[in-house]
Amino acid sequence: MTDLRTAALDALATQTIELPSWAFGNSGTRFKVFGRPGVARDPYEKLEDAAQVHRYTGVAPRVSLHIPWDLVDDYGKLAAHAADLGVGIGAINSNLFQDDAYRLGSLTHADPAVRRRAIDHHAQCVEVMHATGSTDLKVWLPDGTNYPGQDDLRARQDRLADSLQRIYAMLGPDMRMLLEYKFFEPYFYAMDIPDWGTSLLHCLALGDQATVVLDTGHHAPGTNIEFIVVQLLRAGRLGAFDFNSRNYADDDLIVGSADPFQLFRIMNEIVGNDALRPGSGVNFMLDQCHNIEPKIPGQIRSVMNVQEATAKALLIDRTALAEAQQSGDVLGANAVLMDAYGTDVRPLLALLREQRGLDTDPYAAYARSGYQERIARERVGGQQAGWGA
Amino acid sequence: MTDLRTAALDALATQTIELPSWAFGNSGTRFKVFGRPGVARDPYEKLEDAAQVHRYTGVAPRVSLHIPWDLVDDYGKLAAHAADLGVGIGAINSNLFQDDAYRLGSLTHADPAVRRRAIDHHAQCVEVMHATGSTDLKVWLPDGTNYPGQDDLRARQDRLADSLQRIYAMLGPDMRMLLEYKFFEPYFYAMDIPDWGTSLLHCLALGDQATVVLDTGHHAPGTNIEFIVVQLLRAGRLGAFDFNSRNYADDDLIVGSADPFQLFRIMNEIVGNDALRPGSGVNFMLDQCHNIEPKIPGQIRSVMNVQEATAKALLIDRTALAEAQQSGDVLGANAVLMDAYGTDVRPLLALLREQRGLDTDPYAAYARSGYQERIARERVGGQQAGWGA
Amino acid sequence: MTDLRTAALDALATQTIELPSWAFGNSGTRFKVFGRPGVARDPYEKLEDAAQVHRYTGVAPRVSLHIPWDLVDDYGKLAAHAADLGVGIGAINSNLFQDDAYRLGSLTHADPAVRRRAIDHHAQCVEVMHATGSTDLKVWLPDGTNYPGQDDLRARQDRLADSLQRIYAMLGPDMRMLLEYKFFEPYFYAMDIPDWGTSLLHCLALGDQATVVLDTGHHAPGTNIEFIVVQLLRAGRLGAFDFNSRNYADDDLIVGSADPFQLFRIMNEIVGNDALRPGSGVNFMLDQCHNIEPKIPGQIRSVMNVQEATAKALLIDRTALAEAQQSGDVLGANAVLMDAYGTDVRPLLALLREQRGLDTDPYAAYARSGYQERIARERVGGQQAGWGA
Amino acid sequence: MTDLRTAALDALATQTIELPSWAFGNSGTRFKVFGRPGVARDPYEKLEDAAQVHRYTGVAPRVSLHIPWDLVDDYGKLAAHAADLGVGIGAINSNLFQDDAYRLGSLTHADPAVRRRAIDHHAQCVEVMHATGSTDLKVWLPDGTNYPGQDDLRARQDRLADSLQRIYAMLGPDMRMLLEYKFFEPYFYAMDIPDWGTSLLHCLALGDQATVVLDTGHHAPGTNIEFIVVQLLRAGRLGAFDFNSRNYADDDLIVGSADPFQLFRIMNEIVGNDALRPGSGVNFMLDQCHNIEPKIPGQIRSVMNVQEATAKALLIDRTALAEAQQSGDVLGANAVLMDAYGTDVRPLLALLREQRGLDTDPYAAYARSGYQERIARERVGGQQAGWGA
Repeated sequence: MTDLRTAALDALATQTIELPSWAFGNSGTRFKVFGRPGVARDPYEKLEDAAQVHRYTGVAPRVSLHIPWDLVDDYGKLAAHAADLGVGIGAINSNLFQDDAYRLGSLTHADPAVRRRAIDHHAQCVEVMHATGSTDLKVWLPDGTNYPGQDDLRARQDRLADSLQRIYAMLGPDMRMLLEYKFFEPYFYAMDIPDWGTSLLHCLALGDQATVVLDTGHHAPGTNIEFIVVQLLRAGRLGAFDFNSRNYADDDLIVGSADPFQLFRIMNEIVGNDALRPGSGVNFMLDQCHNIEPKIPGQIRSVMNVQEATAKALLIDRTALAEAQQSGDVLGANAVLMDAYGTDVRPLLALLREQRGLDTDPYAAYARSGYQERIARERVGGQQAGWGA
Repeated sequence: MTDLRTAALDALATQTIELPSWAFGNSGTRFKVFGRPGVARDPYEKLEDAAQVHRYTGVAPRVSLHIPWDLVDDYGKLAAHAADLGVGIGAINSNLFQDDAYRLGSLTHADPAVRRRAIDHHAQCVEVMHATGSTDLKVWLPDGTNYPGQDDLRARQDRLADSLQRIYAMLGPDMRMLLEYKFFEPYFYAMDIPDWGTSLLHCLALGDQATVVLDTGHHAPGTNIEFIVVQLLRAGRLGAFDFNSRNYADDDLIVGSADPFQLFRIMNEIVGNDALRPGSGVNFMLDQCHNIEPKIPGQIRSVMNVQEATAKALLIDRTALAEAQQSGDVLGANAVLMDAYGTDVRPLLALLREQRGLDTDPYAAYARSGYQERIARERVGGQQAGWGA
Repeated sequence: MTDLRTAALDALATQTIELPSWAFGNSGTRFKVFGRPGVARDPYEKLEDAAQVHRYTGVAPRVSLHIPWDLVDDYGKLAAHAADLGVGIGAINSNLFQDDAYRLGSLTHADPAVRRRAIDHHAQCVEVMHATGSTDLKVWLPDGTNYPGQDDLRARQDRLADSLQRIYAMLGPDMRMLLEYKFFEPYFYAMDIPDWGTSLLHCLALGDQATVVLDTGHHAPGTNIEFIVVQLLRAGRLGAFDFNSRNYADDDLIVGSADPFQLFRIMNEIVGNDALRPGSGVNFMLDQCHNIEPKIPGQIRSVMNVQEATAKALLIDRTALAEAQQSGDVLGANAVLMDAYGTDVRPLLALLREQRGLDTDPYAAYARSGYQERIARERVGGQQAGWGA
Repeated sequence: MTDLRTAALDALATQTIELPSWAFGNSGTRFKVFGRPGVARDPYEKLEDAAQVHRYTGVAPRVSLHIPWDLVDDYGKLAAHAADLGVGIGAINSNLFQDDAYRLGSLTHADPAVRRRAIDHHAQCVEVMHATGSTDLKVWLPDGTNYPGQDDLRARQDRLADSLQRIYAMLGPDMRMLLEYKFFEPYFYAMDIPDWGTSLLHCLALGDQATVVLDTGHHAPGTNIEFIVVQLLRAGRLGAFDFNSRNYADDDLIVGSADPFQLFRIMNEIVGNDALRPGSGVNFMLDQCHNIEPKIPGQIRSVMNVQEATAKALLIDRTALAEAQQSGDVLGANAVLMDAYGTDVRPLLALLREQRGLDTDPYAAYARSGYQERIARERVGGQQAGWGA
């Protein structure tokens, strides 16, 4: 094995990917949510399903929660349940989009009482963090307006800054705020945090514990996402990814399914800027739904796709790349990158899994396990988890 | 009054705009549907609300229905109810997106039994047409795929062509099929009718009674919609508009709210190609939701915006325009268009309303009428209509 | 006259718009540059043509230069020529895109000698500023890469930061750096300053004299430009506009011709955030070409379109707007904005011109003046100015 | 070797790719054309350079010409020169964008004399076809408008239809018209053939010898190009590809460099619909420029990238794919496709080249050949070919 492959194996062995609990409930489009037998009915079952993904891939040891979707009476018990399953609790997401009070905004609302309600919701989230050992408070602000003139864009920024300040003040010294941006949806004229620039400006105003979340599905058409990765790393503020795929809007498709080359280019910047290593401060999270396909296999596929892109990025001959770049060899430099991309990394990942005592094909191993059939059989009655839950 | 204004008034007096019944129920995004007091609970109440829009604008005498959302036991009774309210039944929409069987497609599904189910649903719709006097069967095909390889794109087209043929054969001699296209959503890799070209090809294969529906929110970024209007008129196949506004996806915002100049340019082509007159075969329909604003006032605003764009298009000095175009006077020709666009047509529309005995400001008149307060008070209990209903 | 109209007239009387010298030379697409009789052949003639725009509109008293396109031996003489014509010298643009050395970058180039050359070019520009009284050094960085891997994105940012620092150090105490961003072109994989966030980060690192230029044609499809205006004003870093229109790429069409409503929304934020007044620090510049239409009339039209959008923005009833916004009246707030947009402001602008002793129709007055015929007759021989000059 | 690989090798052995002569001259952006030592100065030298691409790849035996760029006195001599070099003449492109008369259009111009001029230009092209043995007349219509109202969109379509009819009538019985569409550029409001639907409608009106050219860089953001491939194949009207890469506009980058997965998906539909075989009627042409990299190596890279995408498409297990599709196994069907895409096909292509007596790495073999150094040394004086030539 070449040195490059050996180093790649070592790096891959340290990689972890965080799963979102909502991926194990039902989700869909505004037109229809297609359910499936066996879908989890509560946070405990979601964790059980997530643990299956970790069991077969070996790289998905954390699960992020959404509050209030994942409300339970006893978070110590939930965390213990997770630990029993071999996983831990990751980021806590403070959902701000399903309360009737938030029709015209939450942290940006013109009415101080509504903003107070939305701020207080974060106090509850921070409590969950203390109870579960989570250190990342993830804030995706769904606020925005649908019509020009509907509200004062500047005033909304000022109110947002004030609300975020109050939430930031709640954080413990080891906690971070992860602030996400989104180009559009659920509002369609102006989102209040539509781009990385806005998110970063708020983080800079807040302090060192505030970092930006990059959701790969939240950009304008044609946006060069790996460039944003570089900018945020350069500013020391890339806190996390929300990985998914898109062709059009925030499609939330399986990671790497729409444009595997883009995923590779992103991981190339991660590797090239030394941000893959544990301790880099970047949390690699999935954030994608499965409306028409089974959920656990879908998450396994997404995890495997991140691994493949990472492996290819690790196989880039960076010495040759730097030489070609320095000498202005446009085609040569591009060729170094493409050589790594053209490599079939499935044997390398099979080896990684073997070394860990895992099946070389997580997708097939899960399919053979009978788990899917069992949950379909056993999870009868109750209400399947979903966005409305 | 100039001759141009006189002619404009005459043309405006003949214009009609069709309302969609679903606009009077709740709708929203996949994240949240915000309800409101007084929202209609059944097709009868939807018609009552739609009739209010007609009462104050005078130009909205038809309401299109969606099957199965608007299922009732007795369509004769529903049509009579409409007639009592001063409105008629417009197009019948054959919803194909909320049946669990349609997860992987309806008219394009690989399984002939599923296709048969979807075809049979149109027989039911044609029955409703006979019972209500509707002559337009509107087919928006929500079918598509989310992942490359998921299904065979060519086979889906062939199955679609066959399914449409069977539906087309159900039409009476005075009925039309209106076939809509959509760029994306609810599927995110390949829609089966994603553009006007695909819709038109199927219509050409079907026969003269098949025409294309242009939904203004269903295009790729940057698409020149008025060019498509011209193409479809030139081919004699523009059957209808679904008017709404978009900035990003299929935002379904109030007509003319995102880009009033685009709406004007569309109406310019309609007027310039003599397609405004009754009998032109073009049905001017609204198709837009109101997630955060009251529904009846929203529809009134959309109707008024279509009227304003039409009025401006009618005020274009087409003799001067043709002269400037013929002489290659680029800035001069553009100026003729912009002169009409820069005109304040609200006084002209006020006059139109006065001549019909209407209040000059439909929006204000409705607000003063007390209807909104009454339905909020009286419509208690039951289930508000919505996309799930 | 209402108070709103009186105040609007006062504000319009203080508005100035800066013209770009290149607009009076030939320009075009990569496919073809169409020339015209009478086009200016040197910077002196460009100033003469620009002065015509000011003569008839009364609001275009400054002309920005591009170095090296506008290289002359004696800038004192050029400035005096401008003064004789009633105009002044505005921003100095440091063109970085036509030197063979810059094939792979200028301020970001891997080779320090090339960067030095590009930095030194700015010393020359600052000299021109001193000689002409210009206070704005405008830097549009055309650098970027065409292929993934071609160069190291992070290293390019670091080199850019260093280069900008050296240029910034050349500025006199009353000078500003205006740093422009562009989504794409002339490079097509990654521009080195592709968005407002990147530009602002560099400005923040440089110091208070560095501000961002917003070119209305330099964004991804669907970008909400007025939101960026708000962000940059909130950060105190909106230095200038480059106004033009686009439907697809950086089309450089007549300002307001593609989306007049967008121009109005931008001016709404300018007015609403008190940035229209002289002294606000925002320089309102045009930046657009005329490949198929005559140049001076085209600039007059662009200037008039900015004035119309400004006038409409000044007519917004901001008290009513704020009330509707505060009360959550979505449709009402939008209606306040649209009422101003629907107003025909041409009579108000005619009055403004009358008060200044100008013809009420600058476009027609210029056409009648015979200037165009005279330059077509007299400017024979020599080489017309253009992008290659 | 598996049966799939054997069959793939056989199919790859029959594949041919057509090169554009302009790729061997200088090209660039409107901002700058960067030249290089050794660039061809006339059509003869362009053919010599193109022959190098064929020499090392073995799959590029034809060169398309552009008239008037490639005007020579004796086309029999040029064709003989090509034959001596081992290549043939492919399509003849009728450039319509560099004549001053065409400022406002060519085949669509309001003035019949200008249209006549443009039509007559095609008679010249057909003569070249007869003289060179070319059978494909490629018409890319660069016509369009920049401003709403500038010209009558409908009248332009009618004039276009008439002009095309007259050109079509010039074709010999074995000749085809290839009609290309383009989303935007060089006009920025409305192109006269902006999409495949418009192109196809004109082809259907013309007759069986008229087919559509799909340039992969000529679509709106997000357009699913392989879907269009399917539609055109289904209609029997896909005449040719113009292959290149784009991220933003018509970037003309190296084929497969921006989105190799898209290229694979396109070739998947070609293979799956049996359109790869010689005789399918689809001409696989390159159409891309190299502003910053050396030209011959760039073309070699583009050719190799098409080969790799084709090889991967040929390795898809279509039996397994069809089974998964039929059974509604969304993830399974996608996985079959991705398995082929994840395969490293460079060894297979090396084998293909070995079987033909070629170097396994065309790019490296050309670099070692000394040709580049020789032309740089020998081609001194004269004027390098380019878009202005």
